[in-house]
Amino acid sequence: MRDVSIIGIGRIPVGEHWESSLRMLAAEAASAALKDAGITAVDALYVGNAYGATYSSQLHLGALIADYAGLGGIEAFSVEAADASGGAALRAGYLAVASGLVDTVMVLGVEKSTDSIGSARVQARTISLDADYEAAHGATLPALAALLMRRYMHEYKLELGVFEGFSINAHANGALSDYAMFRNKIKPGRFAVAPMVSEPVNLFDGAPDGDGAAAVILTAAVHAADMVPLPVRISGSAAATDTLTLHDRSDMLYLRAVNQSANKAYAQAGIQPEDVHLFELHDAFTILSALTLEAAGFAERGQGWVLARDQGITLTGKLPISTFGGLKARGNPAGATGVYQAVEACLQLRDQAGANQVAGARTALIQNIGGLGSTVVTHVLQV
Amino acid sequence: MRDVSIIGIGRIPVGEHWESSLRMLAAEAASAALKDAGITAVDALYVGNAYGATYSSQLHLGALIADYAGLGGIEAFSVEAADASGGAALRAGYLAVASGLVDTVMVLGVEKSTDSIGSARVQARTISLDADYEAAHGATLPALAALLMRRYMHEYKLELGVFEGFSINAHANGALSDYAMFRNKIKPGRFAVAPMVSEPVNLFDGAPDGDGAAAVILTAAVHAADMVPLPVRISGSAAATDTLTLHDRSDMLYLRAVNQSANKAYAQAGIQPEDVHLFELHDAFTILSALTLEAAGFAERGQGWVLARDQGITLTGKLPISTFGGLKARGNPAGATGVYQAVEACLQLRDQAGANQVAGARTALIQNIGGLGSTVVTHVLQV
Repeated sequence: MRDVSIIGIGRIPVGEHWESSLRMLAAEAASAALKDAGITAVDALYVGNAYGATYSSQLHLGALIADYAGLGGIEAFSVEAADASGGAALRAGYLAVASGLVDTVMVLGVEKSTDSIGSARVQARTISLDADYEAAHGATLPALAALLMRRYMHEYKLELGVFEGFSINAHANGALSDYAMFRNKIKPGRFAVAPMVSEPVNLFDGAPDGDGAAAVILTAAVHAADMVPLPVRISGSAAATDTLTLHDRSDMLYLRAVNQSANKAYAQAGIQPEDVHLFELHDAFTILSALTLEAAGFAERGQGWVLARDQGITLTGKLPISTFGGLKARGNPAGATGVYQAVEACLQLRDQAGANQVAGARTALIQNIGGLGSTVVTHVLQV
Repeated sequence: MRDVSIIGIGRIPVGEHWESSLRMLAAEAASAALKDAGITAVDALYVGNAYGATYSSQLHLGALIADYAGLGGIEAFSVEAADASGGAALRAGYLAVASGLVDTVMVLGVEKSTDSIGSARVQARTISLDADYEAAHGATLPALAALLMRRYMHEYKLELGVFEGFSINAHANGALSDYAMFRNKIKPGRFAVAPMVSEPVNLFDGAPDGDGAAAVILTAAVHAADMVPLPVRISGSAAATDTLTLHDRSDMLYLRAVNQSANKAYAQAGIQPEDVHLFELHDAFTILSALTLEAAGFAERGQGWVLARDQGITLTGKLPISTFGGLKARGNPAGATGVYQAVEACLQLRDQAGANQVAGARTALIQNIGGLGSTVVTHVLQV
């Protein structure tokens, strides 16, 4: 294998882009990434997208976006792993460049959720659950996250309010970013009394769907230094899976795939959790954040929420997370989310994060999750 | 990079599997491939699937199938490029093993078309066309193939009957295989009078949708020889794209991506078209077969049909194609088709093709197409 670096990044603000189509969002992010890298062409395009088929009645995004973004003719295909599609596409791009067979790859995540509204959106999104054993019975992702959160609260004898630190932090960081979908702050004490979505998951807990597109350009590390002033090295890359359904897990409060993929990525990068300067984790629900911190080695079991309570996750904390707002405030453009995480981590490592900057960031961890821990893709980025 | 070989193959008969679910079909093919390779685990699973979201309301197949096939915990994701999804998944698996970072990969293609029927199936399949400029106007893939075929007939002043050799050959070969969906032969002269689907594409022209699953297991060539008696080397691998729509092409009778991906694969393998002993091409429509033979270097422009007329494509011909029936008679389980092609080529190269054997086959070309040449993935397999 050869080492791989990120030499270009691009993104658009996450939000409700009613006036733009999926391909327009994608082309904008692609163009920004090419400009950032100072190049006009790449050898391959791997698209991270989860719900194009059901949101937008549009598959075959590789060829479509390659053409529309002016990259026509190149190798292109999509990678899908539910909401971990972006991270999985990054993994595919990393492996392609590492092989030595593809020199420069654009990994582009895109999602256009506003192509579907109302019940169509619920239906569109539910295809990532188990169709036969979950969706068929009316389960949705928030409803299943609620079961998980309730179990956690029961097991560790906790009140709803203990989760508020995650949402307060995400919105505090999102408020500083022009690319965040939600820029309002959440006041302490308001989380626990927010309107319920699927008890105990409330309006301030679950991340909003959003339209978005983000892109990163990868090439061999040996060339990267000659191409851009600040290449970011991918020093660890790993993916792991767990059962699609919670009811098939012997211990649903332990995210096994988070643990496995994080440990593999740490080992490849030669780091320990304590070496991580910031962590873009998959905060689709606060319970996922708590369980992720536990399984990834940052907290004991049942203690993931403590780091949030003690201000450990803020931009100046021990382990800053969701530094541009995370899924909760930046928004969750499903298949694009994992690529947003990569773009944001690069901005931090390039010291270009502006008001969201984590001082002295040299090692970033990013982790993209599909379902409630069913697919987990972890990367370590370093400068 | 390191060289990559196929050490295990598995497939199920293509057909209408009303009594089985998508995951059951997938698990059966996975199990057969593991048994063939004489192993019980792999390091990663890449799933080729095109229409799971719309046929079966089921995405997130990587984690789902990894679990259901007893491979739980491993890295897994899906690869999508419309009907070239299987070939694209093979490409992703090849790059992963070539990188040296993943030792053993299962590439599994699966499709369950009978989860949708009637107009739902048309809708399900049309997501691979351009939603804004084709599907929105009522176009379907057979209707667009008909435009292409009509143009070819006009340009080269040909009658419909000249295409019959492709269908006759496919059904003759399918009749010899227990894994083919259609095992009836087509008599000379019947093709030109078959009932029309979308004139001039008729019932004996377009390939049928089918349920199917096929799997291949890849590992480093250096280990393969110690693991199985007959490893098959992947000596060429390439993908290319063209516009999604025909109307965006300056010359719609030239399949540019077929040419580009084939030439790249030939160059990597160090071969010429005349070195190919058999060609599993993407005969979704006879016009695709004719245009493919021309763009891939086996015929002059406008002459692709001649090889079929002159018995050049039969099992004993100069260039046997569709040796197990191709898409036309084996059936086209969309996202699985590219993996069926790989399995069938391996059987030929391992001299295990039975009644379908091409004598002395040492070099096979396989090519999987999404849309009407929009995504093309080509591999050269050799022993």
